[in-house]
Amino acid sequence: MTGTATSLDPALHSELERLLGDRVTVSAAIREHHGQGEAYPGSFPPDAVVFPRTTDEVSRIAALCSRHRTPMVAWGAGTSLEGHVAAIKGGVTVDLSGMDTVLRISPEDLDVTVEAGVTRKQLNEALKGTGLTFFIDPGADATIGGMTATRASGTTAVRYGTMRENVLGLTVVLADGRIIKTGGRARKSSAGYDLTRLFVGSEGTLGIITEVTLRLSGVPAAVAAAVCPFETLEGAVATVIETIQLGVPVARIELLDELFMDAVAKQAGLPYRAVPTLFFEFHGGSERGVAEDAELVKELALQHGGAGFEWATDEGARARLWKARHEAYFAGLSLRPGARAMITDVCVPISRLAESILETKRDALQSNIMAAILGHVGDGNYHVAYLVDPNAPAEIAEGKRLNDRMVERAIAMGGTCTGEHGIGLGKQDSLLKEHGEAVGVMRSIKSVLDPEGLMNPGKIFRT
Amino acid sequence: MTGTATSLDPALHSELERLLGDRVTVSAAIREHHGQGEAYPGSFPPDAVVFPRTTDEVSRIAALCSRHRTPMVAWGAGTSLEGHVAAIKGGVTVDLSGMDTVLRISPEDLDVTVEAGVTRKQLNEALKGTGLTFFIDPGADATIGGMTATRASGTTAVRYGTMRENVLGLTVVLADGRIIKTGGRARKSSAGYDLTRLFVGSEGTLGIITEVTLRLSGVPAAVAAAVCPFETLEGAVATVIETIQLGVPVARIELLDELFMDAVAKQAGLPYRAVPTLFFEFHGGSERGVAEDAELVKELALQHGGAGFEWATDEGARARLWKARHEAYFAGLSLRPGARAMITDVCVPISRLAESILETKRDALQSNIMAAILGHVGDGNYHVAYLVDPNAPAEIAEGKRLNDRMVERAIAMGGTCTGEHGIGLGKQDSLLKEHGEAVGVMRSIKSVLDPEGLMNPGKIFRT
Repeated sequence: MTGTATSLDPALHSELERLLGDRVTVSAAIREHHGQGEAYPGSFPPDAVVFPRTTDEVSRIAALCSRHRTPMVAWGAGTSLEGHVAAIKGGVTVDLSGMDTVLRISPEDLDVTVEAGVTRKQLNEALKGTGLTFFIDPGADATIGGMTATRASGTTAVRYGTMRENVLGLTVVLADGRIIKTGGRARKSSAGYDLTRLFVGSEGTLGIITEVTLRLSGVPAAVAAAVCPFETLEGAVATVIETIQLGVPVARIELLDELFMDAVAKQAGLPYRAVPTLFFEFHGGSERGVAEDAELVKELALQHGGAGFEWATDEGARARLWKARHEAYFAGLSLRPGARAMITDVCVPISRLAESILETKRDALQSNIMAAILGHVGDGNYHVAYLVDPNAPAEIAEGKRLNDRMVERAIAMGGTCTGEHGIGLGKQDSLLKEHGEAVGVMRSIKSVLDPEGLMNPGKIFRT
Repeated sequence: MTGTATSLDPALHSELERLLGDRVTVSAAIREHHGQGEAYPGSFPPDAVVFPRTTDEVSRIAALCSRHRTPMVAWGAGTSLEGHVAAIKGGVTVDLSGMDTVLRISPEDLDVTVEAGVTRKQLNEALKGTGLTFFIDPGADATIGGMTATRASGTTAVRYGTMRENVLGLTVVLADGRIIKTGGRARKSSAGYDLTRLFVGSEGTLGIITEVTLRLSGVPAAVAAAVCPFETLEGAVATVIETIQLGVPVARIELLDELFMDAVAKQAGLPYRAVPTLFFEFHGGSERGVAEDAELVKELALQHGGAGFEWATDEGARARLWKARHEAYFAGLSLRPGARAMITDVCVPISRLAESILETKRDALQSNIMAAILGHVGDGNYHVAYLVDPNAPAEIAEGKRLNDRMVERAIAMGGTCTGEHGIGLGKQDSLLKEHGEAVGVMRSIKSVLDPEGLMNPGKIFRT
């Protein structure tokens, strides 16, 4: 369903206009722009896009849409990789990007409250000079609301956790327009059901998040970055596993495989070797502390064929060491010009990481589908980019088959079909494989909070 | 309702006997034993107690009870402080203490799966020699199932988090007997709603937890303990706040006020001064690291009137330094022989901790109710023991009034009415004050998972 026709109920349209004036639009271009996120194929434009400025306006929008039985899709920055923002049943996309106020910063409590449309980079700008920072980094400059809704994480989760651990409280608008506040600013609470964690990761299917209270971290006094090429993937992964098991407080451990390193070398014109390479970041209270951490990991790496471990603490040298990692995603796409990257996202217990990655590699080699691997490996989480010809259905089918095998192996290992991207449209079958009967309980909860099925319909569950 | 009469449906009784043989009882003594936890007054014995050995048996028990519309109350070690285990509507208490197998320990992944009846001390015995430990310590030797159901924490939460952060997955029996598995062993996942966190802290009102997968921590290479008396409560709390704000990775920070210190001095016959006193524990990778942490906090304490800071790393000296803290609870009861301690449990943002504690002290002084304070102050969590004459209704009413004022202040500060004990029977009004409209959403979730209201009825919500 790609197109520009709108079937918005005219009565709803005029009620929305009465509420929002020119902040409701049925413009074809704007609807198209809101029809898809990143990576997931297909465009599903909504019938209208609204631009609320307050929680109260979101509440009124929800009440109006509910009365007209019209679907609602929350929109942050549109950086979802799993089709979360696609308006597959039409309806109204609620674009929260105008709710971009940092409402409160409390340096003494290491917490902050922001409107859902604040992006992570904007938040970190606002935190400058406070000695605090928000470390969760999914790559894209996503909104805090969107990151909350997909339970996002990224490179720093190994040290600082995911949105699950870092959201303290929420303001949420329910389908019928009710406004609730969940959680609070206390560091712990046993007061009733954990609605905060229920909405974190609910992908807009239970309500629209309008405000988020986050815990922050102190800017570390000392940071070291390191890079180390390995002769084998096994050696790199063994180094990761030992680092985690020894309890070294690494802040990031990233893996790029030989294909990504080859791509980066070619794109950047830098003398990287096309071998599996680990990137580390160490955060600590003193230069000596991070130096000790780096030297310890250097020794571990050496035992596993990682002879070229380099590390540095000054900012310029750190940026140079991490340059390949920062350029990886787009460089990877150049490995096969014209190809589409099918991005996967499994996460397994760390003891199974080597086996999981190596079997995935083996499968891909047997299939002749180019499969480049990049991982937040300290968590056991990695992404494969299967580079397929978007005009070759057989390749797309083969990419899907490889992904299915990888997901099934991950689940059999006690892992998950998605470490950080979410279910969206793409992983609904995998969710059933992973959680079985529990998916029925998820559906029950959905049915009682959104009885008409209006909140981001068709996501997480098939409708 | 205290008594020994049972009104168990005879048909249900015989069906339970067919399933469990002599592991179902209506013995008055056993029912009385299961009629109350700790601290919360009144005994509410169930009509029968059952002792299942497997998740499958729990499932069959739930299905039978559901068919006979009979309430079910889960029982672990009976150490709840808020009346969670009281069978206020009669029915069947499901005593899980026989499900006490440690099912799997995976040192390489730092995780473990246990049956719900395993206690925390039993788990730590089983972990000996693995290099790993489970740090969450609510004081009592509670079961892991009970700790999960109340979202327990204790002295180490400031470093290692609460059950919210440390439960990776659950097996849960629902009211109708369905068995679901939530979460998994991956360190992070974005696969659907976070049912794990929904059941953590649900106090037996949504289902019966039968198995728990936990993350573990490495046994620290070096530990230091410290104690420091202060001239004023303000000085002690200011030291706590600066320690947290500076990011010193303390593993425990406990406060005993002058009343508790006086009680301990008298009980133990040790030369403690009756002044507010802080107890610290530092965990680190090296003796030098924990020594640096201890010396840093020593300096902070000195600036706030804490001149007698002592610290040690060897085990005997550490035990000596912490002796007062370990004996505090029971010593506190001796402050007023014959009195009952009304135990409270607020938690506030750390910046409001001094104000919160001092106003609470002031209220108590004006009331002539003895109020001894003990706190997990690194989290902003503290407990007041109001020592009241159990036979003086006016004192009990005054204790309740003081508690209500404290809770209202805590909520107004962005805090919570319960940091770690739960709602149970005692804090249902406070829950409404704290979460307002969101309590309606909690009730909706309860209504869809337990439509007949059979799972621990009357807890969290009034029925």
